[in-house]
Amino acid sequence: MKHPIAGIFCPHIVPLDARGKIHEEELRRYVDWLIESGVHGLYPNGSTGEFTRFTPEERRQIVRIVCQQAAGRVPVLAGAAEAHIGETLDACAQYAEYGARAVAIVSPFYYKLSAESVYAYFREIALQSPIDVTLYNIPMFASPIDVPTIRRLAEFERIVGIKDSSGDLAFMMRMMEAVKPVRPDFVFLTGWEAILLPMLLMGCDGGTNATSGVVPELTRKLYELTRAGELEQAKRLQFRLLELFDTMLFSADFPEGFRTAVELRGIRLGKSRQPLSDTQQVDRQRLSRVLQCILSDFGMVQQPAGGCPPQAGPTSLTPTSPAPTSLEVDRDQVGHVAQMVVEELRRRGVM
Amino acid sequence: MKHPIAGIFCPHIVPLDARGKIHEEELRRYVDWLIESGVHGLYPNGSTGEFTRFTPEERRQIVRIVCQQAAGRVPVLAGAAEAHIGETLDACAQYAEYGARAVAIVSPFYYKLSAESVYAYFREIALQSPIDVTLYNIPMFASPIDVPTIRRLAEFERIVGIKDSSGDLAFMMRMMEAVKPVRPDFVFLTGWEAILLPMLLMGCDGGTNATSGVVPELTRKLYELTRAGELEQAKRLQFRLLELFDTMLFSADFPEGFRTAVELRGIRLGKSRQPLSDTQQVDRQRLSRVLQCILSDFGMVQQPAGGCPPQAGPTSLTPTSPAPTSLEVDRDQVGHVAQMVVEELRRRGVM
Amino acid sequence: MKHPIAGIFCPHIVPLDARGKIHEEELRRYVDWLIESGVHGLYPNGSTGEFTRFTPEERRQIVRIVCQQAAGRVPVLAGAAEAHIGETLDACAQYAEYGARAVAIVSPFYYKLSAESVYAYFREIALQSPIDVTLYNIPMFASPIDVPTIRRLAEFERIVGIKDSSGDLAFMMRMMEAVKPVRPDFVFLTGWEAILLPMLLMGCDGGTNATSGVVPELTRKLYELTRAGELEQAKRLQFRLLELFDTMLFSADFPEGFRTAVELRGIRLGKSRQPLSDTQQVDRQRLSRVLQCILSDFGMVQQPAGGCPPQAGPTSLTPTSPAPTSLEVDRDQVGHVAQMVVEELRRRGVM
Amino acid sequence: MKHPIAGIFCPHIVPLDARGKIHEEELRRYVDWLIESGVHGLYPNGSTGEFTRFTPEERRQIVRIVCQQAAGRVPVLAGAAEAHIGETLDACAQYAEYGARAVAIVSPFYYKLSAESVYAYFREIALQSPIDVTLYNIPMFASPIDVPTIRRLAEFERIVGIKDSSGDLAFMMRMMEAVKPVRPDFVFLTGWEAILLPMLLMGCDGGTNATSGVVPELTRKLYELTRAGELEQAKRLQFRLLELFDTMLFSADFPEGFRTAVELRGIRLGKSRQPLSDTQQVDRQRLSRVLQCILSDFGMVQQPAGGCPPQAGPTSLTPTSPAPTSLEVDRDQVGHVAQMVVEELRRRGVM
Repeated sequence: MKHPIAGIFCPHIVPLDARGKIHEEELRRYVDWLIESGVHGLYPNGSTGEFTRFTPEERRQIVRIVCQQAAGRVPVLAGAAEAHIGETLDACAQYAEYGARAVAIVSPFYYKLSAESVYAYFREIALQSPIDVTLYNIPMFASPIDVPTIRRLAEFERIVGIKDSSGDLAFMMRMMEAVKPVRPDFVFLTGWEAILLPMLLMGCDGGTNATSGVVPELTRKLYELTRAGELEQAKRLQFRLLELFDTMLFSADFPEGFRTAVELRGIRLGKSRQPLSDTQQVDRQRLSRVLQCILSDFGMVQQPAGGCPPQAGPTSLTPTSPAPTSLEVDRDQVGHVAQMVVEELRRRGVM
Repeated sequence: MKHPIAGIFCPHIVPLDARGKIHEEELRRYVDWLIESGVHGLYPNGSTGEFTRFTPEERRQIVRIVCQQAAGRVPVLAGAAEAHIGETLDACAQYAEYGARAVAIVSPFYYKLSAESVYAYFREIALQSPIDVTLYNIPMFASPIDVPTIRRLAEFERIVGIKDSSGDLAFMMRMMEAVKPVRPDFVFLTGWEAILLPMLLMGCDGGTNATSGVVPELTRKLYELTRAGELEQAKRLQFRLLELFDTMLFSADFPEGFRTAVELRGIRLGKSRQPLSDTQQVDRQRLSRVLQCILSDFGMVQQPAGGCPPQAGPTSLTPTSPAPTSLEVDRDQVGHVAQMVVEELRRRGVM
Repeated sequence: MKHPIAGIFCPHIVPLDARGKIHEEELRRYVDWLIESGVHGLYPNGSTGEFTRFTPEERRQIVRIVCQQAAGRVPVLAGAAEAHIGETLDACAQYAEYGARAVAIVSPFYYKLSAESVYAYFREIALQSPIDVTLYNIPMFASPIDVPTIRRLAEFERIVGIKDSSGDLAFMMRMMEAVKPVRPDFVFLTGWEAILLPMLLMGCDGGTNATSGVVPELTRKLYELTRAGELEQAKRLQFRLLELFDTMLFSADFPEGFRTAVELRGIRLGKSRQPLSDTQQVDRQRLSRVLQCILSDFGMVQQPAGGCPPQAGPTSLTPTSPAPTSLEVDRDQVGHVAQMVVEELRRRGVM
Repeated sequence: MKHPIAGIFCPHIVPLDARGKIHEEELRRYVDWLIESGVHGLYPNGSTGEFTRFTPEERRQIVRIVCQQAAGRVPVLAGAAEAHIGETLDACAQYAEYGARAVAIVSPFYYKLSAESVYAYFREIALQSPIDVTLYNIPMFASPIDVPTIRRLAEFERIVGIKDSSGDLAFMMRMMEAVKPVRPDFVFLTGWEAILLPMLLMGCDGGTNATSGVVPELTRKLYELTRAGELEQAKRLQFRLLELFDTMLFSADFPEGFRTAVELRGIRLGKSRQPLSDTQQVDRQRLSRVLQCILSDFGMVQQPAGGCPPQAGPTSLTPTSPAPTSLEVDRDQVGHVAQMVVEELRRRGVM
């Protein structure tokens, strides 16, 4: 009996050891912690998992470890895109053998392909794959999958769903409108947890969300509150998760902000394969303190030494919210400084 | 006692007579019909109202007529952007005198301005306007208003809200998160009715939606169902309105599709000031038939002579939906033809 | 006998008086200075001339003054786009009467129109205009005019040329390739002086360049050197003008950097109708000093009090150029500071 | 004594056999033909060479074969980007051993990285590479390398040049202006042969151009005419190559149009690893005939059976060019048909 593909799948980061190699023991520990903390499934070799920064052999190793460690407790959706279709199909066969529930295949990237080429690519895979396939649409990084194309691809039985990371709710609804009449069971997952609640409400089956690698308890809770119709509570949680998500997303090049936050939860991820400049290393220390403050608000970690500024974000949305806090004021001061610097730079032709 | 700025405001099109001048009588009739059909407010000189295609004198004339005809039954939000701040302030004063509830001022357009310039522009207006101001963010047409800028502008008492037409729900939430702590009464309106339901659910006060000029009964109903927590019904209506919205938005250059649909409701809008080519005129006749079919599904107009294809869209989302209808198949055939033509064109260097 | 439309046309800024009204006397003085300094033609109501920030009456006043003052010494290409085609044609008739050589009409803006609508718009004007028309393509601000559309429009006798500000040399060549076979006399002007030399070399007839309002002697010289085949000299001048152009373009919102520079040449332009924030006013003073240093390198103005940093730009391109100058080093330091601030801002969610 | 990195380097496609594997014999034959036909250098594992569609082992195999076969006759610039810096450095060492003159490393792709991350990435490589490195900037596919970043990276001795495929001539000039003062020997190569002539004229050392894999004789000739100052002849050739380039670039997803053209020259490339749909296969046959006509104009191949339409393109640019040819008219008819279909599609919500 197959696991359903629904709920929150975690596109987890891969721990590396001091030599920059996959840290198998820590990866197993991370998988256990994620499952125990409530994720509905695991998603190795996703964008958050930096799949392009591993070799083909390493990608196989990662899926093998994750499938073994999950051991059937939760389904595994394994990212299987390789250099070309032949290699991808080999990976599909391997991942089926490892016990993955399905593979996820990102639309072709680097080259920006037409809709017809995207169709031809997935058609070939659909015809030959020995395992269920979910499409992965992430137009900021890869060739877009448009509505007519998803409609055409939904005719292949092997293609069972799509993960969309565009963050465009109307687009998600257009896909549902085009596909559900012909494939009522087609699965829609969102990669954009900034609006997970409304995505679920309008018909998504779940999400594959980087934030679930940081606070799996909370993404699970948001999912369950929404499913239970507890919308006021869900809404409050969604706004708070938005603050966390934005901080992780915009404070460093993706997925470095998420890496920083996961480490605060006690998982030793090691250094990314994308190096940091000196400036970026200093920045990362500051980001870590900001994230520690946010996570301490959730009661998940201790406040950093020296404490945190008064909380400004989500709770401010409750009626009892006080006047602008010092952090708000601070933000404006920083904005002012920034404006001056940016103008200075532009004047000098540096920007 | 001031009207609240909430609910569905109609950014109506302006009827023109045979000479291309404002058709005052028909405009008054349209205003009456909109109010009687349920809009909460009127929004002359919006983007749907083609404000850039009228002279300054005509824009004043439009607001005068609409305010007179509304006669206090519903509030009027009057688009007041003019060539420069001095002219804009004159318009503000005039519209206050006409009885407008507030003005809406679009971010500077043509030139793409920095956030600091957008701030300086609205600051000047905020300091001098004799009437409440709502900001209008429409990044596809005008300089974007970003989150720090809306936060800074929310400190001016005269600025009472923002209409956002980005269609980005996460962005709307970020604005709320930044502004509500300092201005709990700040008004958030969405211009993107494709996702009106989730926008309202996450905290919007209403919308200014072109679709309300076509089916004011239905946008009102969607608003009320959502407010009442009747989410399943609301969701079904949202999907059906999405089909209508998409057809009007994507079948012709904005706002020609909306003009075509309004005319089906019996309002004589006349020809747009943006001319149509021969090809476009033929297209418009076909679009009219398609829209008539959609509107007849809602029971709002008769089917066109010759009838309509079996309904394919929203109802297909219900569990009883049958297999792909002939329209679905048709779509694919058309897609196939299109692909061939596009490839042919690209081959010849035309595209 | 008509003036040819060739050479460097100046899209000049309009001087304003203390009340923000058109400063007629100073505008006449500016026109005289531009003609005496070598521009081949004048281009009132261009983008640099902030045409959208004037009322319809003011736009007519500007063209009247410029045509009168030019008095046949150089041709006038008058920007004539108004709210709709009827108004535009009235302006065309008026400008013909004032003695303009031709009008320039920007593609419809605000709304982003399809190629077919752009065609329908210009077709209507072409059929009715009493004066020669040049199209104006500026895709960063207005609906793009693509190659098949320019090809179709070139069939109308009234349309005599195009000004393209895309800055894309291959696109300019594609237009030439499509149009010249059917209209060998069609005029191609570039609005992108960053690469004026190569544009001229590949077949452009001239340019309408904001920089000619600042250093008309030099844009004239660059034109003549290129025409004379003195490419080495022309190339050196092109690189030096690039530095000036970039500083004016990127140091403030367009066209404020150009306004600052024109004032250094002794023309009193007054304050822009787009207000500056406090920060921007401080920035503008610094920009003025930087521009004064660049212009003093050209021997056109005195150095500012306090002197200038050692020259770093164009001369560095000569073989005798020394090691990195202090300004170069300075740039890097600034870049470093900027990076830190930007990262800080992103961390705090301000950017 | 090292080969200079200058002139036209060919980013060649890799022939595949019937099983989709590297066809070593045909690759060797292609290398010979390219060298004999005049390319100054070879560039395996470029974007045209579909480097992302090969496995790491295959990429090594390709460079090995090309270096062996070139046998010192021309320099080899070997694309060396791998999954992470460690792997990339291994490839660098290997390619140095194979006898490559330098490696070319594309900016990180898939993730869109900040300038600071791009800097950190290349800095690491610069410090450790055993072979000269040229940067590869292709902002449509990979993280952009901006002017301040290239300026900072030019301080590393190992970084000897940049290949830029942005097609933006002003950007190329800005890079030169920033870098040449500190590194007079820094090499600038353009990947945008649409404007190869003006790029060379403004200071580029050469190009890495896909078109040189199709008509190596002509890209060589264009380079030499430009260097010799024979600008009128060079210009005519540039316009003709533009037509060929555009047809190959826009008629199919890159680099399929180039593959089609190379095969017309007698090189058996086999099927791409990116599959073609049925529609695309039909299209490819038509494209092949169009390309055969263009190449027959150059006297390089026979006309296809059935002949070619009268020539319309570049020669029309000569003064003796006749009125619009049948192909021109044809283009408009096609444009008209296309417009109708596109409108039809949009009406049906397919586009």
